[in-house]
Amino acid sequence: MQVLEARKGIATPELKAVAKAEGVDARKLIASVAAGRAVVVGKRGKALGIGEGLRTKVNANLGMSPDFASPGDEIEKLRAAVRAGTDTVMDLSIGGDVLRMLKLVVKESPVPVGSVPIYTAVVEGKKHGRGVADLTEDDFFNAVESHLKAGVDFVTVHTAITRKGAELARKRTLRVVSRGGCFLAAWMRKNGRENPYYSQFDYLLEMLAGRDAVLSMGDALRPGSLADADDRAQRLELAVQGRLVKKCFAKGVQVICEGPGHMRFDQIGANIRLQKRLCGNAPYYVLGPLVTDIAVGYDHISGAIGGTAAAAAGADFLCVVTPSEHVALPTPEDVFEGVVASRIAAHAADLVKLGDGARDLGMSRARGDLDWERQFGLALQPDRAKRYRKERGSKSKACSMCGEYCAYKMV
Amino acid sequence: MQVLEARKGIATPELKAVAKAEGVDARKLIASVAAGRAVVVGKRGKALGIGEGLRTKVNANLGMSPDFASPGDEIEKLRAAVRAGTDTVMDLSIGGDVLRMLKLVVKESPVPVGSVPIYTAVVEGKKHGRGVADLTEDDFFNAVESHLKAGVDFVTVHTAITRKGAELARKRTLRVVSRGGCFLAAWMRKNGRENPYYSQFDYLLEMLAGRDAVLSMGDALRPGSLADADDRAQRLELAVQGRLVKKCFAKGVQVICEGPGHMRFDQIGANIRLQKRLCGNAPYYVLGPLVTDIAVGYDHISGAIGGTAAAAAGADFLCVVTPSEHVALPTPEDVFEGVVASRIAAHAADLVKLGDGARDLGMSRARGDLDWERQFGLALQPDRAKRYRKERGSKSKACSMCGEYCAYKMV
Repeated sequence: MQVLEARKGIATPELKAVAKAEGVDARKLIASVAAGRAVVVGKRGKALGIGEGLRTKVNANLGMSPDFASPGDEIEKLRAAVRAGTDTVMDLSIGGDVLRMLKLVVKESPVPVGSVPIYTAVVEGKKHGRGVADLTEDDFFNAVESHLKAGVDFVTVHTAITRKGAELARKRTLRVVSRGGCFLAAWMRKNGRENPYYSQFDYLLEMLAGRDAVLSMGDALRPGSLADADDRAQRLELAVQGRLVKKCFAKGVQVICEGPGHMRFDQIGANIRLQKRLCGNAPYYVLGPLVTDIAVGYDHISGAIGGTAAAAAGADFLCVVTPSEHVALPTPEDVFEGVVASRIAAHAADLVKLGDGARDLGMSRARGDLDWERQFGLALQPDRAKRYRKERGSKSKACSMCGEYCAYKMV
Repeated sequence: MQVLEARKGIATPELKAVAKAEGVDARKLIASVAAGRAVVVGKRGKALGIGEGLRTKVNANLGMSPDFASPGDEIEKLRAAVRAGTDTVMDLSIGGDVLRMLKLVVKESPVPVGSVPIYTAVVEGKKHGRGVADLTEDDFFNAVESHLKAGVDFVTVHTAITRKGAELARKRTLRVVSRGGCFLAAWMRKNGRENPYYSQFDYLLEMLAGRDAVLSMGDALRPGSLADADDRAQRLELAVQGRLVKKCFAKGVQVICEGPGHMRFDQIGANIRLQKRLCGNAPYYVLGPLVTDIAVGYDHISGAIGGTAAAAAGADFLCVVTPSEHVALPTPEDVFEGVVASRIAAHAADLVKLGDGARDLGMSRARGDLDWERQFGLALQPDRAKRYRKERGSKSKACSMCGEYCAYKMV
């Protein structure tokens, strides 16, 4: 129970590990966790801090789909994400045996694991011939329970989409693009009732209160198009998140808020500041944001641009967008490329937020010395650079762009 | 003579073509060109506008190096850059027969071509056994003349590095990283004299005044490390550029200023605004900017992040950084990837600067309709997305991430 311990001034083993890994003062971190401005995710060796004063973190999604449902493929993606340096993974399976997959990911992952329980409710319901609208409130909550029992470290629950929010979204260009949000919007509409995760939020809190899992409040109404960004639906959901965050704080449940999606570059900073204000500085976990709708095939780059703007403005946790977003389930290679792009964004923002440029300075000096091994050692991800050097190196000690005319050699 | 015609209120055929291509009012464009806030680069069918009120443009570099000096390879890069949608190319050859290469690029390129004449002075000098310090002032100016005669549309000349600037750069982590800047810094130091392109700037203007080639004022002192960003050397050079820009305006020579390199994300906007103020709103042409030093192998992503921040703040022209920057001469594939990344940055910034989101809206609607052909038609670069769809499409009409659970289908 990280928050409760922190409020007593106690540094748990996990908190101590985070403080050490980040090089921050444990007392400061205790204060941040106690106030809900930072969370400690994951147990024992997996402990990770997200929030105030800490490095911006990166999450990679994996998971089977109805079209591609091979657990082995997803474990390969897990490995690729970890090799690329992801901080967490989320299993978003909506095909195959979803609970078995989740347990496998929890077992195999060296980093904290998140999940979206409502997918299990829907996929399991379907196996028994029940559509989304046929699911009961118990089905929704039982899915959360099953994921917590499977040992996940954080769960995304779309607590803040209300009937009113779903109604507002109907006027949008792309309505609801969050999968979980879609399920809930459909359920509410067909049953004429409020989102159970919202109306019975206290029950959800009770389920979480005795555990260390972090609640990640899903953003069911995140814009899926620039045309829908920062509209009434998105703002209403953010305001609801703000109210629910305060309930989490009161109960001692660790919480982070999910946000963005598609958003113009100049809108991002304002959204981040609004979330921080409305949600009592709870950590902010953003998808992308994607700064254009037309970069299909290259949305990892669009996401890295938006991710930098978001994290520099205060976002704490970036969800990777892979190059195959909007088109196909990613391959391990796509996941790898996506994680690297998000890590560049996170690091570029941390240079702004935390101001520690020691590694960049080391790289610059290694460059000046034309010391390739030191450069590769300091690189964010060295594999590709090593390959370039090997395949197309210079006859000289310099790189093959300039060879003998290398600026570092001349001056 | 675009400026002089514009000052008479005359729309040249090139200016008319630019106004049409950009969908802007020709009278407004005439005013911008007359005042030096925009330039028209390239003749006849190649005409391109850069600056106030116009789309952000992208330049791709190519050119032989001492290690890889095959004209055929460079023409392949030209083709790759054009296929990826570059607006201009620069031939930066410093190996092989540089003048012959330049002429070939001018002949083969469907887009305006830029070059850096000082490279020719150095490479030709070397063929005759003369080092950089042995070159005469005439050598420097003759190289400019030879490039203008070869038909280039814009020339980079490092007019704004002075002895004082080069001296300031000696205190830096990476001193001078611009190749042209290096040559001039070495020449000044060894000869104890001022940069001829600076001390005889009026002579340079005379060479340019009778022609339509645009002067691109090189940034010899651009930071090559975050540690050197926004330092006295960089600021001094920018101030010198500002003084020289006014001379160009007085002579009716079209001019753009070159800038950045490595720069922290939050420093970029201020640099752009400073250039606009000091340089009378002359168009700003920035390399990258790279927002971290450690993204080696992925500097196209780092450059796309910085490029968006720069262009959103007012930069007009982005120089592509390829994934192989800092390691190896790029392949055609690297150039392609670099151009796509910069174009994403340019477009994301144009959504901010120009506010025209029609294409993005069209894409969102095509997504909602699951109309793949329309999506590919609106994509910034469709090749990769098409491949994903072909190789890993869904059995359903949706994409293979969600298949039957597609949000567009459900809501």
